[in-house]
Amino acid sequence: MAISHDRSAAEPSLDEKTTLLSGQDFWSTKPSPRAGIPSLVLSDGPHGVRRQRKDAGNLGLYDSEPATCFPPAVALASSWDPELVGRVGEALGREARALGVNVLLGPGVNIKRSPLCGRNFEYFSEDPLLSGVLGTAHVVGVQNQGVGASVKHFAANNQETDRMQVSADVDERTLREIYFPAFERIVAQARPATVMCSYNKINGTYASESHWLLTQVLREEWGFDGLVVSDWGAVGDRVAALLAGTDLEMPGNGRGTDAEVAAAVRSGVLEEAVVDTAVARLRDVAGRVHAEARPPAVDFGMHHRLAREAAADCLVLLKNENRTLPLAPTGRVAVIGEFAAALRYQGGGSSHVNATQVDSPVDELRALLPDAQVDFAQGYDTTGRSEAALLREEAVALAAGADTAVLVVGLREADESEGFDRENLLLPPEQIELIRAVARAAPRTAVVILNGGVVSLEDWHDEVDAVVEAWLPGQAGGGAIADVLTGRINPSGRLAETIPLRLQDTPCHLNFPGEQGHVRYGEGVMVGYRYYETADVAVRHPFGHGLSYTTFAQTGFQVTVGGPDAATVSVTVTNTGDRHGKHVVQIYVTPPRRTVGSPARELRGFTKVALAPGESTTVEIALDRRAFAYWDISRDDWTVAPGGYQVHLADNAHDVVATAVLDLAGDRLVRPLTLESPVRDWFGHPWVGPALTSAMLSGLTEEEAAAAAEGNADALRLLSSMAMRQFVGFLPRQLPDELLEELMETSTVSPEPIDD
Amino acid sequence: MAISHDRSAAEPSLDEKTTLLSGQDFWSTKPSPRAGIPSLVLSDGPHGVRRQRKDAGNLGLYDSEPATCFPPAVALASSWDPELVGRVGEALGREARALGVNVLLGPGVNIKRSPLCGRNFEYFSEDPLLSGVLGTAHVVGVQNQGVGASVKHFAANNQETDRMQVSADVDERTLREIYFPAFERIVAQARPATVMCSYNKINGTYASESHWLLTQVLREEWGFDGLVVSDWGAVGDRVAALLAGTDLEMPGNGRGTDAEVAAAVRSGVLEEAVVDTAVARLRDVAGRVHAEARPPAVDFGMHHRLAREAAADCLVLLKNENRTLPLAPTGRVAVIGEFAAALRYQGGGSSHVNATQVDSPVDELRALLPDAQVDFAQGYDTTGRSEAALLREEAVALAAGADTAVLVVGLREADESEGFDRENLLLPPEQIELIRAVARAAPRTAVVILNGGVVSLEDWHDEVDAVVEAWLPGQAGGGAIADVLTGRINPSGRLAETIPLRLQDTPCHLNFPGEQGHVRYGEGVMVGYRYYETADVAVRHPFGHGLSYTTFAQTGFQVTVGGPDAATVSVTVTNTGDRHGKHVVQIYVTPPRRTVGSPARELRGFTKVALAPGESTTVEIALDRRAFAYWDISRDDWTVAPGGYQVHLADNAHDVVATAVLDLAGDRLVRPLTLESPVRDWFGHPWVGPALTSAMLSGLTEEEAAAAAEGNADALRLLSSMAMRQFVGFLPRQLPDELLEELMETSTVSPEPIDD
Repeated sequence: MAISHDRSAAEPSLDEKTTLLSGQDFWSTKPSPRAGIPSLVLSDGPHGVRRQRKDAGNLGLYDSEPATCFPPAVALASSWDPELVGRVGEALGREARALGVNVLLGPGVNIKRSPLCGRNFEYFSEDPLLSGVLGTAHVVGVQNQGVGASVKHFAANNQETDRMQVSADVDERTLREIYFPAFERIVAQARPATVMCSYNKINGTYASESHWLLTQVLREEWGFDGLVVSDWGAVGDRVAALLAGTDLEMPGNGRGTDAEVAAAVRSGVLEEAVVDTAVARLRDVAGRVHAEARPPAVDFGMHHRLAREAAADCLVLLKNENRTLPLAPTGRVAVIGEFAAALRYQGGGSSHVNATQVDSPVDELRALLPDAQVDFAQGYDTTGRSEAALLREEAVALAAGADTAVLVVGLREADESEGFDRENLLLPPEQIELIRAVARAAPRTAVVILNGGVVSLEDWHDEVDAVVEAWLPGQAGGGAIADVLTGRINPSGRLAETIPLRLQDTPCHLNFPGEQGHVRYGEGVMVGYRYYETADVAVRHPFGHGLSYTTFAQTGFQVTVGGPDAATVSVTVTNTGDRHGKHVVQIYVTPPRRTVGSPARELRGFTKVALAPGESTTVEIALDRRAFAYWDISRDDWTVAPGGYQVHLADNAHDVVATAVLDLAGDRLVRPLTLESPVRDWFGHPWVGPALTSAMLSGLTEEEAAAAAEGNADALRLLSSMAMRQFVGFLPRQLPDELLEELMETSTVSPEPIDD
Repeated sequence: MAISHDRSAAEPSLDEKTTLLSGQDFWSTKPSPRAGIPSLVLSDGPHGVRRQRKDAGNLGLYDSEPATCFPPAVALASSWDPELVGRVGEALGREARALGVNVLLGPGVNIKRSPLCGRNFEYFSEDPLLSGVLGTAHVVGVQNQGVGASVKHFAANNQETDRMQVSADVDERTLREIYFPAFERIVAQARPATVMCSYNKINGTYASESHWLLTQVLREEWGFDGLVVSDWGAVGDRVAALLAGTDLEMPGNGRGTDAEVAAAVRSGVLEEAVVDTAVARLRDVAGRVHAEARPPAVDFGMHHRLAREAAADCLVLLKNENRTLPLAPTGRVAVIGEFAAALRYQGGGSSHVNATQVDSPVDELRALLPDAQVDFAQGYDTTGRSEAALLREEAVALAAGADTAVLVVGLREADESEGFDRENLLLPPEQIELIRAVARAAPRTAVVILNGGVVSLEDWHDEVDAVVEAWLPGQAGGGAIADVLTGRINPSGRLAETIPLRLQDTPCHLNFPGEQGHVRYGEGVMVGYRYYETADVAVRHPFGHGLSYTTFAQTGFQVTVGGPDAATVSVTVTNTGDRHGKHVVQIYVTPPRRTVGSPARELRGFTKVALAPGESTTVEIALDRRAFAYWDISRDDWTVAPGGYQVHLADNAHDVVATAVLDLAGDRLVRPLTLESPVRDWFGHPWVGPALTSAMLSGLTEEEAAAAAEGNADALRLLSSMAMRQFVGFLPRQLPDELLEELMETSTVSPEPIDD
């Protein structure tokens, strides 16, 4: 139902324009034939279309049209595979079109600051590069289908507790290096139709009302040209929000804020041009997103197969001893766990999808192991209706008679949702007890975990033989689990977030989720593995970790300069085992000692390769200037410190395979000396320093000069950070003002040509 | 040279008044007979008078009149004994008077945020209560002698790196609970003549220019009625500083800032009353501090004995196995270590004292062990002139032939000073190697450590039999060490700061000392043991730890309510061993779950008792309201949460001996509901909540009501922090405005009398 815009027709009135900038109802915008703008339908969400049924309430979360539930971001990120994420994005776009949805609300690219965040299952990673690369692939995929994406939640929305009001108190370097880059990359590389501003405040200002965030950074610096949509109910002061750059308030409401906007224009508080610009953006986005009279049909069977393929590439084999996995094609397998029959595959809240079908792990295992005896025991009951001890005994008995026990455990959907955060990292205690009992009884035990947020593997990790982290694998996860357990698919997932030993070890432990309306981002840039590696804190499994059924060799690691402050890495990967497999090449960088504190290493490039047994391939990964830069708050800019950068080829954030050192010229910063500059800058200045020292000692006898030099050294040690203005008053002999003036003038003028 | 103020004489001119508010030179103020104000002499420092010799340069730190070097604060704090600190304060006051000093610059009560701070040796503790109680005793002692104290450095001066410019970025609750209380207590209980403002900024504003800090908090809230003195060179903008409440700029300078002040008054930028008030404060303080025509003589011998007594009570016996200490009166003792002959006893910088005499540990040991053979080997050479291996071999040979080896090790004075921070917690590697080699050779090994800042005991703690933390014990430390090693004095020191296992374990590790002009206090209130105990991080020795040569029993622990939100603790302490000894009763409090995050426990009371063998005493410790309060930023006030408080009797911050639970009524806070209040507050309100729910369900059939209730529950879980203003737009049926108005009105009016 594209509406043609007759530009010769009368322009809409101010009142009509203002009404276009808030929803018509919960899930759509108002149409204006006069303005050439159709009504747009916006729907959740990031891993499946939640097109609310017409007769459901506004928040009838669990009553939507059937759609494919693809693996949520927590799983998809573990694929480290943008190509796969792109294909899932395209499938999402097709389903959105089929259901008449113009803008699909996702991806969620907030950084996992704490493993407790209730919505972590909707987010990719603790690392901004991984989040940004995968988020870009998602947006490109969705938008390839003519559907708009909505990148959310911008910004610093890293918890559910008090999410509508809390102020994320976070310094700018941390925003720029950790919480912004995923958004920045997606804007630059995928041109998303919309960005969704978050509910929370940033340093005291609501995101929806932050001109710095939504206009200066997002549009002016990054070049975003789409529509900023509010998170549902995030707009408090509508006029302030519009001024800041929030174009569209969602949902529609009876609050009369359209009239407030019109009144603000009439009273001169708001320029009408601001309204016009927002309307123009709406029109532009409407022109970019399809609205078809006859939506295409979707092959849900094909999408289910894609969901299975995707899920299988997301599972992370954390541990595999005693040749436990893959399962032998014959023999007895005891499959244990309620979730093995009734899969846990998605989280609660606005992203909840009414799945078209759901596979069960035990059924799929039976299908893939026709020559084995696959038995099942419930093991635990998440409803608490059955007695835990009885279920456990039954499971243990089954396990004792099997060759391998496969335990499928995890968290309940009710435990992980939008709207609230978890309070600990533990599996339910009866599941832990079950795992330990089964592990004692069975010859070999493999544990599959289903969870949207990280669980610690305390108390049982070392007692079992194999562990598969399956996250929330989407509706086809049952098949994917069977594929990986049987070896039909060789696991290739890598952790997109650290599994810590204990909650207490997490970097924001005592600063999460904040108090009295504020959450202090006290750990700064030291989020996730950046913290564990820098503070030397042991973890259960590091970021980037993941095993395979085959083995890989990485040889010929080379780093070559690729332009000013840029480089290219190359390495040859060989599948040295006897199975087809996929490997993720991970490149981390350690900067030289510099003005700002630095993480021990940061992920700066990665690529996933698929190799047949014996096959080799050489990959090249480009590291651009940003791979070496930090955000300098004194310059308000990305800055490369001169010096030697260690470029690491690594199996994960902790285990480095090879390191090369790259010398970069960096940014040569000559700052003028002033009377406010600290004396260390004066005495440390390459040519002013010596001139100053010699002026201070001039006219003294050799002995006096030696004594004075010693006194100066003492003073400098004590007063190195004192402003020159004060320091001159501390000297026994006053320095002439003219001398200081002259030295300041020459401080930015090199006495020799700079060519070193 | 008291100057009488003839109030009938002409008042000084504006220009004269402004000149009185900056120094006459480095160490004195200008006199004004007309204003009735004598010149005041101010001198460093906190543990000894550094009266600069007339012919020394401004910063001739090491050329001052001889004075007693008492144990610096790092040692004195380990006494946990305000009575002792008060006697040292009195002695300092006597020496100040004798040397013509009117204001003695100390005590330093900054909190030890990081063990790396180069000036930690001048500060008491990581705990604000201990710092405040001891600081109060110090000020009372000094001022008893008619000399003014200067409590420093106010505030948040917790590092040396960039100390003149760095902004301590720290939230108000943390300032109020951690960094302010020592100052607050001293102001309230000891009426210090002066407070010295610090160099650094706090949240972007120089302390010297912070009206909030120096006037609102210090004077208006706490009642400070003395003079605020700038740290030397801390004033940048003199007019801004004066306006904020910095009365006196030190030192004198040639910058012409007096004229700036006069000009500001003449141009109307500054009210003359501000100048008058500062002058009046100067006059008042001058009237309070003696200036005697014939200063009294000091008995330096008596002060040296006091310094020894004090030091002995400061040493902390960290470990004592295999009956290593006290040393036997006969047999062979191998005393090893350069510092055993040439004591390390104070730190570098402005607090450096020209000691009247210095005892050496080995000489004093020989004096106290006339029947033993006490041999000496240098062991290491801090100048690096001798070869480490040779010295080590010699020491090992000596140790091998001894019954006990006593190693005296530590950091060099050059390693610890005002002006810079340390970079690690390690002893010099050659000393560590020496300790390990000696421990292998000697039958028993005791290690005495001399250090101003904490050193980790990594790599060797478990290999030796006994460890004595002697800190920097002042000029009589050699005798004190001999007293404790031989048992002449039974050690009774307790750690005033945690000894962590590793630097990486310290709470501000990655936020110290900051970057680009800012240091983020990311750990908030979780400083020192508050962090280790709350985050469950293992330490080498906890805050409060210290052993004795005798044993104590603590019985009859009782906590009784002592008024509203206050209590009294009583406990009976018995010396159950066979030596006279001193014990520190330590009381910690754990609050109930409350609005703000809470340390696992906090020191809220302590007292030190001396007991003969078999003797008992019952001590009472009062816990006032503040012992249970937190700083609530929404109320801007100290607040006691209602609930059960655990009151612990503990041997140290980690080891609890007994716990009692105290139920407190606390502050009953009824906040009015508004449309900005989150829906959780509306639905959770004791009488508005039920009224709201029933209004929402009214007129519905039972079935409809049940469905709506379920929908509401879902919505609440997702949107609990949403402002009511937004939430009403989310409801399927609009709530009448009048109903909301009515509910808001009644929200602060209890429908029943509050008497529960």
